[in-house]
Amino acid sequence: MVRALKRIKALKKAAFSDGGYDAYLILNSTNLLYFLGFPGTSALLVPSDGECTVYVYGVNYEQAKAEGKGFSVQLVNGDENLMGKTAAQAKSCGVRRLAVDTLGVESWQKLVKEFPSEKAVEVNSDFVQSLRMVKDEEEVQLMRRAAELTSEGMKAALEAVKPGVKEYEVAAEIEYAMRKQGAGSTAFESSVASGAPSAFPHGGCSDRAIRDGDLVVVDIGSTYRFYCSDMTRTFAAGKPSQKQLKIFEAVRQAQEKAFEAMGAGVKAADVDGVARRIISDAGYGSYFVHGLGHGVGLEVHEAPTLNRFSKETLQAGMVVTDEPGVYIVGYGGVRIEDTVLVQKSGAEKLTIGLYSLSAE
Amino acid sequence: MVRALKRIKALKKAAFSDGGYDAYLILNSTNLLYFLGFPGTSALLVPSDGECTVYVYGVNYEQAKAEGKGFSVQLVNGDENLMGKTAAQAKSCGVRRLAVDTLGVESWQKLVKEFPSEKAVEVNSDFVQSLRMVKDEEEVQLMRRAAELTSEGMKAALEAVKPGVKEYEVAAEIEYAMRKQGAGSTAFESSVASGAPSAFPHGGCSDRAIRDGDLVVVDIGSTYRFYCSDMTRTFAAGKPSQKQLKIFEAVRQAQEKAFEAMGAGVKAADVDGVARRIISDAGYGSYFVHGLGHGVGLEVHEAPTLNRFSKETLQAGMVVTDEPGVYIVGYGGVRIEDTVLVQKSGAEKLTIGLYSLSAE
Repeated sequence: MVRALKRIKALKKAAFSDGGYDAYLILNSTNLLYFLGFPGTSALLVPSDGECTVYVYGVNYEQAKAEGKGFSVQLVNGDENLMGKTAAQAKSCGVRRLAVDTLGVESWQKLVKEFPSEKAVEVNSDFVQSLRMVKDEEEVQLMRRAAELTSEGMKAALEAVKPGVKEYEVAAEIEYAMRKQGAGSTAFESSVASGAPSAFPHGGCSDRAIRDGDLVVVDIGSTYRFYCSDMTRTFAAGKPSQKQLKIFEAVRQAQEKAFEAMGAGVKAADVDGVARRIISDAGYGSYFVHGLGHGVGLEVHEAPTLNRFSKETLQAGMVVTDEPGVYIVGYGGVRIEDTVLVQKSGAEKLTIGLYSLSAE
Repeated sequence: MVRALKRIKALKKAAFSDGGYDAYLILNSTNLLYFLGFPGTSALLVPSDGECTVYVYGVNYEQAKAEGKGFSVQLVNGDENLMGKTAAQAKSCGVRRLAVDTLGVESWQKLVKEFPSEKAVEVNSDFVQSLRMVKDEEEVQLMRRAAELTSEGMKAALEAVKPGVKEYEVAAEIEYAMRKQGAGSTAFESSVASGAPSAFPHGGCSDRAIRDGDLVVVDIGSTYRFYCSDMTRTFAAGKPSQKQLKIFEAVRQAQEKAFEAMGAGVKAADVDGVARRIISDAGYGSYFVHGLGHGVGLEVHEAPTLNRFSKETLQAGMVVTDEPGVYIVGYGGVRIEDTVLVQKSGAEKLTIGLYSLSAE
């Protein structure tokens, strides 16, 4: 609860003192998890004055009452209109300018109907996003653990990748290793892509058996207490070819130099540029078909983005991925990815190890 | 592709011939998967006349070109506005009345700005929902396999649930068993909730060690080629007490009688009523804090809902859960759940087995 109240205090300062709103309605489930620390609620109304109200359906009501100390917990019945209910509470608190983090257009239409003017309600996720983007100490600790568990999963991948083994069998060993050591669910669908399909960055995980000579891109992440991690390694099944080694070396250099370029005050687009230049110079520029990375936290993809078009500047406490790749359609792909903590000066890799193409 | 084209044809009939729209814009990622058969795209524009266009960012572009035969595949650059791009294409096809499946209010505001009047664009997910709600033969086949794999996972749970074993260790064995036999990722976060926290329907999966005398609610689901399954069993660690057996019997009866009541033409609310009455008669009415069930498909929770407020009538080909429960705060919970295929007459359980409280 201390964590929850500290974050709500920070939101109030940003949105009310600096932003001019007099209430914030949180509807996004990950934002709710961020501010409350437990899942399963449907809305949180934070007024500038007075108590915060958590809205929850019957199925999760008792759990919210047990975990949501310090909040007023309101039961929402199956036949009630959540937008109407939160709006009524906001109006009873005298709210005149309500910010909402995010919502679908149908809910939006229900919500604005409750207010005298559409202008009384504004969608503004910036304040929440700014808070979530920079991790506090407790978050870093959880993400460090998620990253350790993911690195353990990658060791299991290294053991499992062999000609004749199916992609999903490799995934089974990875996920078992992470879970057995205390991980939550996977942060996203584990990807083990071998052979030509490894040239598709989101190649997935099929029943294809790995063949001698294949490139195998393994992209995995565990969660720990809801916090995500994201890590990719590429292995060669059998002895790597000269071409495979050449591509791997370019990606490896790009990944390392981009990491070395990171630090508070550095522009995200510039870090992307460092990796992109190295890959271009090696002759693979047109095969690096995505941005360098993205923020990681309660979601595996969140702000900031690190690509050519990024406007963000890195800040200490941001956790981002560093994941250049080269994808040659019909041949295969190589990607190397770590989850990285940006620091005041430089950065720290949270996922670590296995920077070698050889799976032998 | 045959599947994709058949589904798009059905959408066209419903939305254009019957609904009066002249184009449909699909933005929801699960709806996109439903119509295309592969993941990773960002939009699909279906005009009443002419070719369908798939929109995809660079990271997934080559994969979409390889898998999206029969569609025009458009690359979206990182600095492009997807709403503007799809609207331009719609206008160039002479679209005057565009339906959109679902979108956030911020995207909505960008989209309507592109049209002369806000009335040219309408959010309408009903047509897609009606199609997705009734599974075709291929979908039933995939869901049957997902359910088999989930039933295998539950066998592993039965083996693993013992005093002294941690909740996440049970989850590890379940998930490993499903994956090893060919499952995709889990359909949702596996829940193994033991002791008093089993009274929270979404109790999760912690590092708590199971104790002798605990109720253990295990709620799991695998996917198979993107299709979900959902199954819950409750086990007693050690010898079940009389009270545990009494609660279990009430839930078991409710689950079975609700299953027997299912069939095409039956009202969803009535099926919920059958289960609710049995649990009420046993004296646990106020402890059954959620609806009887929900649809399952590409999402683990989708239409229809089966609760007191449901308006839907069951149709042959719907796949729904049958999951009554009793949750006594401070004591523990019991839930039994199967994924069930509604048939012309009666219904068929896709998940099966282990209808006993005793884990010994």
